[in-house]
Amino acid sequence: MKDLKPRVLSEPEVLERLKTKRGQPGYLAMFSSWLGGVITDPALMQIPLDDHLVHRGHGVFDTCTLGDGKLYRLNTHLDRLLRSASLARIEHPWTKNDLIKMVAGTAAASNVRDGSVRYWITTGPGGFSPSPKECPEACFYCVIFDPIPLAGSKSGPLSEGINEVTVLDTPMKPPLLATIKSNNYLLNVLTHMEAVDRGGTFGILVDDLGYVAESCVLNVAFITQEKVLRTPPFEGILLGATIRRVMDLAASTLSEENLISDVDQSPILASEVSGDQISEMFLCGGDTHLYPVLSWDKIPVGQGKIGPVAKRLTELLEAEGTGQTSGDPDDFIDVLYDQ
Amino acid sequence: MKDLKPRVLSEPEVLERLKTKRGQPGYLAMFSSWLGGVITDPALMQIPLDDHLVHRGHGVFDTCTLGDGKLYRLNTHLDRLLRSASLARIEHPWTKNDLIKMVAGTAAASNVRDGSVRYWITTGPGGFSPSPKECPEACFYCVIFDPIPLAGSKSGPLSEGINEVTVLDTPMKPPLLATIKSNNYLLNVLTHMEAVDRGGTFGILVDDLGYVAESCVLNVAFITQEKVLRTPPFEGILLGATIRRVMDLAASTLSEENLISDVDQSPILASEVSGDQISEMFLCGGDTHLYPVLSWDKIPVGQGKIGPVAKRLTELLEAEGTGQTSGDPDDFIDVLYDQ
Repeated sequence: MKDLKPRVLSEPEVLERLKTKRGQPGYLAMFSSWLGGVITDPALMQIPLDDHLVHRGHGVFDTCTLGDGKLYRLNTHLDRLLRSASLARIEHPWTKNDLIKMVAGTAAASNVRDGSVRYWITTGPGGFSPSPKECPEACFYCVIFDPIPLAGSKSGPLSEGINEVTVLDTPMKPPLLATIKSNNYLLNVLTHMEAVDRGGTFGILVDDLGYVAESCVLNVAFITQEKVLRTPPFEGILLGATIRRVMDLAASTLSEENLISDVDQSPILASEVSGDQISEMFLCGGDTHLYPVLSWDKIPVGQGKIGPVAKRLTELLEAEGTGQTSGDPDDFIDVLYDQ
Repeated sequence: MKDLKPRVLSEPEVLERLKTKRGQPGYLAMFSSWLGGVITDPALMQIPLDDHLVHRGHGVFDTCTLGDGKLYRLNTHLDRLLRSASLARIEHPWTKNDLIKMVAGTAAASNVRDGSVRYWITTGPGGFSPSPKECPEACFYCVIFDPIPLAGSKSGPLSEGINEVTVLDTPMKPPLLATIKSNNYLLNVLTHMEAVDRGGTFGILVDDLGYVAESCVLNVAFITQEKVLRTPPFEGILLGATIRRVMDLAASTLSEENLISDVDQSPILASEVSGDQISEMFLCGGDTHLYPVLSWDKIPVGQGKIGPVAKRLTELLEAEGTGQTSGDPDDFIDVLYDQ
């Protein structure tokens, strides 16, 4: 254990240590409304300690995907961000168009055409009380970083499929907290950790009445033997952007291709969808991530292999997210890079 | 609306803007294990954006009071911090003694003998997934700042008393989340905001069965007409450090002074403790903060005035917290200031 008597650091020492601590985290650009500009040095990508995001969880976030120089589904994600901010009662000055400019500007400053995008609206710095009244200025932060597979998946999506377990010890969030996409994610983290402990990956939450809810940061979907795509309603769980696109694609392309007969978003008892009652099960989120579930609580799902629906949806989502196909043409924002 | 096309900032610009944004926030010293030292410039008091505290709520905190150069009840608070960290499954290398050294060292570097103290154990920086496996190093942060009255109280404690309301629209946290003192405080914030909207101050949470739970960041206590101090059990609410000291003082000093006949920590129906069924009601937290409640849902509590128990407890807590009396002699840590 190193000596714990702390010494006071000078400004150059602070900067030097910030730089020394950073490896190559792949953080390409960060916008901060607090600073009024973009930072490209990962060492400086920080948030004031007294921002209520940090110590009170008074901040909301969303994501999107930068693919081939286009911001995929940014409109959809920003609609949800603004809804989250409203439910969290964060007063801020930004319209959706303002937010688009800040995100697209950060992407342009990153100088990459492919990356992950995450952004937050917070009540901002101002003190350590629970009251946002002490915060004079809401903040918007946005970061562009190298895409990294979600924790728990050994390789990219679909390559192997995953095993899942029902989470038993971690409680579900109350519906209000589950529907606001905030940084109050401790229960999501504990859901994931418990799942890993039990031999699963992200974990499946089932409510007290036996209905399937969601995974730690992903929505859950099932394909029945009758080729119906089933997923739970959004009451009390996250309004997933990816699962909504999956439902759209299932109802259009996959129906035309005879892979899907119907889409049904209604409450699902876990007992209705185990083992060979279904042919496929998968989790999805983060625009392009779709994880086929090969077993659930050690019972093989369908044939215990990646099924044709998961395979086809992954192709479609990846093609859209990487800019190879147009997807929903209203939901792409072109980034204007400097020459 | 200012121009939203962000520009890239140089390092000197970042530092200049950080300093310009800071007024006189009264932040005296911040320790960061990430940096391995103490910062005294408020502009530099920041947390890496990718610390899971910031974006996943994977961090726990606690407080204490620096009074006349002593850290009041630090032992008690650190016991709770370590319990919170364990429940939140944060792996870290620190013993209680290590934490005492870091907090006391930060206090010494602050060069003040009176202040508020807050500190966090977090999973640390490492990426944006929910998994702590990507975080190589847990972090400890500690800040010493000028004591500020809790939001919602116009002046210091006890001077006027407060009005309170039952919170109706904000849900309670699930018990696990309520017992871990983490930064997942969005529901606490919304409890406070709803209370203010309804003419209250911090808000009183009552569970579905009608039992009193807690306030937004404070415990609740009642004095019955028979001089019994009643407060709810800690199941499903925060294990309050201040209410525990209040119960100790009620059972000792206040009993000797005939202000209290008994102390009873058991479930309390809200219907049992309204209006003239009780003589006093108060909220307490933050070591020395005790807020007499003069009315609850517009019904005067007792005589609608500050009662003798609240008055006496405030005297005792303030005398302990400011180092005038010894309180529990085992629970003071002397700060060793440089000469």
